[in-house]
Amino acid sequence: MPYLRSVNTIVALSTPPGSGALGILRLSGDQALTLVQPFFPGIKSWTPRHAHFARFVLEGDVLDEVVAITFPGPNSYTGEDVVELSFHGSPFILESALNALLAQGAQLAKAGEFTQRAFFNGKLDLSQAEAVGDLIASESASAHRLAFRQMKGSISKRLQALRQQLIDFAALIELELDFVEEDVEFAQRPALLNLLSDLEGEIQKMLHTFKLGRAIQDGIPLVLAGAPNAGKSTLLNRMLDEDRAIVTDIPGTTRDTIEEKFKLGDHVFRLIDTAGLHESTDTVERLGIQKSWEKIKEAQFIIHLIDPQTTEVTEAQSMLESLRSNAPDAQILTVLTKSDQWTTDYGKRWPDALCMGEGSSMEPLEARLNHGMVEAGCNSEDVLIANARHAEALQAALDALLKAHAGLDGATSGELVAYDLREALQHLGSITGEIVADDLLSSVFSRFCIGK
Amino acid sequence: MPYLRSVNTIVALSTPPGSGALGILRLSGDQALTLVQPFFPGIKSWTPRHAHFARFVLEGDVLDEVVAITFPGPNSYTGEDVVELSFHGSPFILESALNALLAQGAQLAKAGEFTQRAFFNGKLDLSQAEAVGDLIASESASAHRLAFRQMKGSISKRLQALRQQLIDFAALIELELDFVEEDVEFAQRPALLNLLSDLEGEIQKMLHTFKLGRAIQDGIPLVLAGAPNAGKSTLLNRMLDEDRAIVTDIPGTTRDTIEEKFKLGDHVFRLIDTAGLHESTDTVERLGIQKSWEKIKEAQFIIHLIDPQTTEVTEAQSMLESLRSNAPDAQILTVLTKSDQWTTDYGKRWPDALCMGEGSSMEPLEARLNHGMVEAGCNSEDVLIANARHAEALQAALDALLKAHAGLDGATSGELVAYDLREALQHLGSITGEIVADDLLSSVFSRFCIGK
Repeated sequence: MPYLRSVNTIVALSTPPGSGALGILRLSGDQALTLVQPFFPGIKSWTPRHAHFARFVLEGDVLDEVVAITFPGPNSYTGEDVVELSFHGSPFILESALNALLAQGAQLAKAGEFTQRAFFNGKLDLSQAEAVGDLIASESASAHRLAFRQMKGSISKRLQALRQQLIDFAALIELELDFVEEDVEFAQRPALLNLLSDLEGEIQKMLHTFKLGRAIQDGIPLVLAGAPNAGKSTLLNRMLDEDRAIVTDIPGTTRDTIEEKFKLGDHVFRLIDTAGLHESTDTVERLGIQKSWEKIKEAQFIIHLIDPQTTEVTEAQSMLESLRSNAPDAQILTVLTKSDQWTTDYGKRWPDALCMGEGSSMEPLEARLNHGMVEAGCNSEDVLIANARHAEALQAALDALLKAHAGLDGATSGELVAYDLREALQHLGSITGEIVADDLLSSVFSRFCIGK
Repeated sequence: MPYLRSVNTIVALSTPPGSGALGILRLSGDQALTLVQPFFPGIKSWTPRHAHFARFVLEGDVLDEVVAITFPGPNSYTGEDVVELSFHGSPFILESALNALLAQGAQLAKAGEFTQRAFFNGKLDLSQAEAVGDLIASESASAHRLAFRQMKGSISKRLQALRQQLIDFAALIELELDFVEEDVEFAQRPALLNLLSDLEGEIQKMLHTFKLGRAIQDGIPLVLAGAPNAGKSTLLNRMLDEDRAIVTDIPGTTRDTIEEKFKLGDHVFRLIDTAGLHESTDTVERLGIQKSWEKIKEAQFIIHLIDPQTTEVTEAQSMLESLRSNAPDAQILTVLTKSDQWTTDYGKRWPDALCMGEGSSMEPLEARLNHGMVEAGCNSEDVLIANARHAEALQAALDALLKAHAGLDGATSGELVAYDLREALQHLGSITGEIVADDLLSSVFSRFCIGK
């Protein structure tokens, strides 16, 4: 792999900033123990992985009493020698100790550098390393499950299987190339084409999970849409259980889209209230409506609110068609608001609509959303792609495969087909970091917090 | 001591809230290990103080991979069995694990409850326990030194010596009481009176350190005072190195006092800019000037700013006298502003004034402040009282001693003298918690952060 082994010993605050009972400084590198030793005159010998209780002495004064633990490499998080120092969580103490360690020759760790070292030392591959960052940022059970599985190698394993098939396939093609003068065809073309189709299908399936994966990680976009004054902001406030959006009887009250996170069971939704959809002449409102449509296109769920007292069934019907054509993949739930009365027409047209008057329970709506998530496949044991970098690499691999496929169909020279296959392999390899460029690495790890 | 041993096992997040590389849950109590065991099916036996790397399993799913350490009592922070679990610093993971431990029967720790248990189990006395909170909150080297020494028992040791002398003394008086019928005087009155005077002097000396101790802990009050438009706000902005205060040529620009923390060397100052001092008819300005005088009375340092171009020496002289009489204990530094020219009069009157024109260095002023702190005794090895509760108890002990003293002088009955001495002892004992009421305890520990 194109990198140099790290020679410096790094140090960083590994707990969140601020006052607390405990604050931890972590060091990693060959010199980790040598660097901390001078501050612990009381410790004569270190037992690996033993919690030593000792005084951290700075220029003759005791700075703090700390718990110090060494994790000798290679059985540590980074694979290098790691030392963790658990101080009283005082910003002053932590800053003083950090400065002392820096003066002693440690280097301040860059964001993600501990995990980067773990990657360099083969403790994690790249997609697993990325998952560590996602794991820390996860806000819901489903996001956590996604990140944890990826950290434990779910994507890596799946890709490894794909790559192996592709390598076998490429080997056959390259073998043909070697014997091209003899005009031998080792690989049986129809079988090869079938295999290629299978691989394409697999990648396509993974790519299809990207929207859901990203939604689970960032919050599932749930858009409240409907005609002006249909009760969207009222519903938003009820779901959030606070007066977040201004609610009046005046149609067009909401102009800017409002977005709030909303936790429901295992999931975090991004609940988006939008301007009412209609033909408007007001400039500000028109801009708001434009924004509404943008949000609708990105939605995983749309709650289509209808006020049966003011909206004709045909109007509501045509609004639903617009929503459907703008967001063909979204799940749309119909909610009849501001009335506990079903009109026969509405009952016929939307037999499974939820009717939500002022006092009605939120539970049926929440149950529908949870059920919708299950339908979307969030509980399946399948690998979900949540990382844009992975999705791009998969798409590039797919494009290369399709080119190879077309080449085989059109009887292009084996050399060109082999080239496309190698390109596909390279893209797949970049996800786990088996084939990786330096600039990619720094971009991946700079997204981490310091100290990880 | 009037308390019940804690029977519950408590748990809390011990690192600051928020995302980070690591987040630690800490448990303390008899059941600590029993409570966490079900979540670690992979750990068959626990080695005390060993960092076990293991999976935390929740309802069959792996929640996280953690480092788990047990600190069996009594050699732990609280004296009870303690378990520390170091998770990835994800709020979701930490919340899930915390809820699981609560469901398992742990109780959420109240603020300061870990340290309170350490106190109950005799690991720390009360003044040491209070110092743990101060240590975490310390913002400067001097505040840290103060809290650390107190945590290690500096005040406790000093008080113990005082109490022992007092106990010996009281014993002599009580002995006299037993033999009162025989009219025996065991204790030699002049020697007793001397001893009492010594004790009073000692306590008075400790009380005198309270202003400085509190200043070191909360920030040393440094007031900028002077006539309107003398350049106070300009100096404030230069010291803070930011445009904090509005500066104009119009006298009376500053009305509300401005207060900002300012770190210099080992100390944190509370830098206070005030309204210019003069006779004003403007109502708002007059209220501002009133506030200025209040701040001056509380100051540890006053920087008296004089603009020699607009202020007569006699005016400046009379302002200085007002400052001195309002703040007899404060150190006053004179600074001549807005001019690099000394007039002979000023040079004669204030030979050691600092002359600070627009471009002049801040170093001489900073050197004076640092020197002033040394003069105030901040570097001495003496015990400094920084806690208002301690100061109150010392004052009450002193009052009781003075009463006993007067009693001895006036030949009051030995019984009354003995009563006063016992009261003094009780007040001294309340500082370290040897004699302590329940309501005091809860007030002391509720000031801690959760998890400590």
